[in-house]
Amino acid sequence: MKRKITLKQIAKELDVSISTVSKSLRNSLEIGEETRLKVQAFAKFYNYKPNNIALSLKNRKTKSIGIIIPEIVHYFFSTVINGIEQVANENGYSVVICLSDDSFDKEVLNMEMLANGSIDGFIMSLSKETQYKGDFHHITEVINQGMPVVMFDRVTNDILCDKVIIDDKAAAYEAVQSLIDNGRKKIALVTTVDYVSVGKLRTDGYEKALLDNGLPFNEDLIIKIEDVDTCEITISELLHARAFDAVFAVNELFAVTIIKTASKMGLKVPEDLAVIAFTDGIISKYSTPSITTVSQSGEKMGNKAAKMLIERLEAEHNDDEEENENYTTEVIETHLIKRESTD
Amino acid sequence: MKRKITLKQIAKELDVSISTVSKSLRNSLEIGEETRLKVQAFAKFYNYKPNNIALSLKNRKTKSIGIIIPEIVHYFFSTVINGIEQVANENGYSVVICLSDDSFDKEVLNMEMLANGSIDGFIMSLSKETQYKGDFHHITEVINQGMPVVMFDRVTNDILCDKVIIDDKAAAYEAVQSLIDNGRKKIALVTTVDYVSVGKLRTDGYEKALLDNGLPFNEDLIIKIEDVDTCEITISELLHARAFDAVFAVNELFAVTIIKTASKMGLKVPEDLAVIAFTDGIISKYSTPSITTVSQSGEKMGNKAAKMLIERLEAEHNDDEEENENYTTEVIETHLIKRESTD
Repeated sequence: MKRKITLKQIAKELDVSISTVSKSLRNSLEIGEETRLKVQAFAKFYNYKPNNIALSLKNRKTKSIGIIIPEIVHYFFSTVINGIEQVANENGYSVVICLSDDSFDKEVLNMEMLANGSIDGFIMSLSKETQYKGDFHHITEVINQGMPVVMFDRVTNDILCDKVIIDDKAAAYEAVQSLIDNGRKKIALVTTVDYVSVGKLRTDGYEKALLDNGLPFNEDLIIKIEDVDTCEITISELLHARAFDAVFAVNELFAVTIIKTASKMGLKVPEDLAVIAFTDGIISKYSTPSITTVSQSGEKMGNKAAKMLIERLEAEHNDDEEENENYTTEVIETHLIKRESTD
Repeated sequence: MKRKITLKQIAKELDVSISTVSKSLRNSLEIGEETRLKVQAFAKFYNYKPNNIALSLKNRKTKSIGIIIPEIVHYFFSTVINGIEQVANENGYSVVICLSDDSFDKEVLNMEMLANGSIDGFIMSLSKETQYKGDFHHITEVINQGMPVVMFDRVTNDILCDKVIIDDKAAAYEAVQSLIDNGRKKIALVTTVDYVSVGKLRTDGYEKALLDNGLPFNEDLIIKIEDVDTCEITISELLHARAFDAVFAVNELFAVTIIKTASKMGLKVPEDLAVIAFTDGIISKYSTPSITTVSQSGEKMGNKAAKMLIERLEAEHNDDEEENENYTTEVIETHLIKRESTD
């Protein structure tokens, strides 16, 4: 990734504070002439391009955090938001939320809107379209303006920033291993047709668990579903053929639909078909039978993301010259919540 | 409600545009001296107190809408947000969301934060605590600054503004009537222990349906539940006593918990116990048996609220002097979605 020079880097190079750089670039007379001219010359040499509004508001800390998430109906994102709110409120920060609707354009527009002085930093999960396009310029831009970003769940290696993820591969591995431990041999993976990075990792974990246990990896048992409406038809055909005796579904809507389809066909869950879902939501808890899930620990993820962002903001706020840009990626542990849909 | 004079009223009284008033109050030389002094004198006489930041930003339209809702895990609010986003995006508006967590203080802080130049107007549903306190000064303030507010679902008569509601009383009446039509005689109302206005209206509708059908209204059958955890215990005692043969629950979490409790006791739904829930969410759709619900039409509610707000914003934008302050309250129709939990 090619990086433009940031306010922060200018400050570091010239051994002055960020506000000194900011004020010098606005030609503020608060800064002595020598420093001012040095900063301006340096910025010009490195072709520094500020966002004017953000620059002028640089020193007006809003004590607000912006969240950008793909959707709101998804229970997982609700729990992450609750986790962020807890830590933010404890630390005197407000939270504003924008939805990208899994659209690249909406993600860009929302970030631009919030970056213009409404918030101090972002916590975000990428839209599907952004991941598909691989275009992250809008995120690079806000980071280059000195606005910290923490990514969670749907992240990218192309952006250097703090990240909070779960080990999707290990989580999928654990789920599939538990099905194998219970004697299941034909385990289907029911997943989405999309470009979300986590889907790939879950598939890898599924495959590794099978191979480690000497079971065949059969491409036909990876069932890609367009949406919940087509789920029932696809699943019902495969169930008729008795193609599998266990299912690992990447979300709970697929899992509950599979259980309903199996019940209609007279199959018993878990006797004839064991089911595990990714994401521990309210459907899994309240369906009959209740569904064994891999908990994504959304609240913990939100807690951690907020903590990372606020620490970075407070470090900036103290104009801590020693603040490093060694970004970290926190891996939140998942765990299997056993319920009635497995043995 | 005692009203302070607003920018808009000053403009109307003096037959000038809102921006003329705004600029005059900032003593802008763009406005002729005579008008400027007249506006200032008028504002002083009526003790007009502007919010300075909002005033200075008055003419910087953000093309953003702020939503304040009590919580995000609630499916109903998610659907309202989706409805707002649709209409907002079609009209080139962005949407930012803040959660009050049903706390008065958070509601006030979030409104203050957003009113300071981030958005053009609000769509909001009151927090429980705000309804309990009956303190709406924060809403009056933003309205007095000339920032339109549309309330939905949890509204108050103490604020004059546009509102979108459902007829909670009629909706409850319809649900209870349908249970009576199916021969149920002992119908329980399972509700929350709180101060939300809609709870009262639903109870009224429940009572009216019973009395209109010559059935006794028995206070003991109004079951007030603290939270979902206590729901199971309370319900199980009453089911043992066979105190009722049908339930109208004010949310789907209560409804699904009641069904699970009844199943554990060997009771059949709907044969031994018919169940209807308020709010059509994913739990009702995917539970076994699926649950008959009163659809609150969240998406329609969101569509309507966004339409009302944008119309008011665009009217302001055109400095339409004829713009009236005749606020309207739109009533969105509900309907019963019949599923397996009733006959």
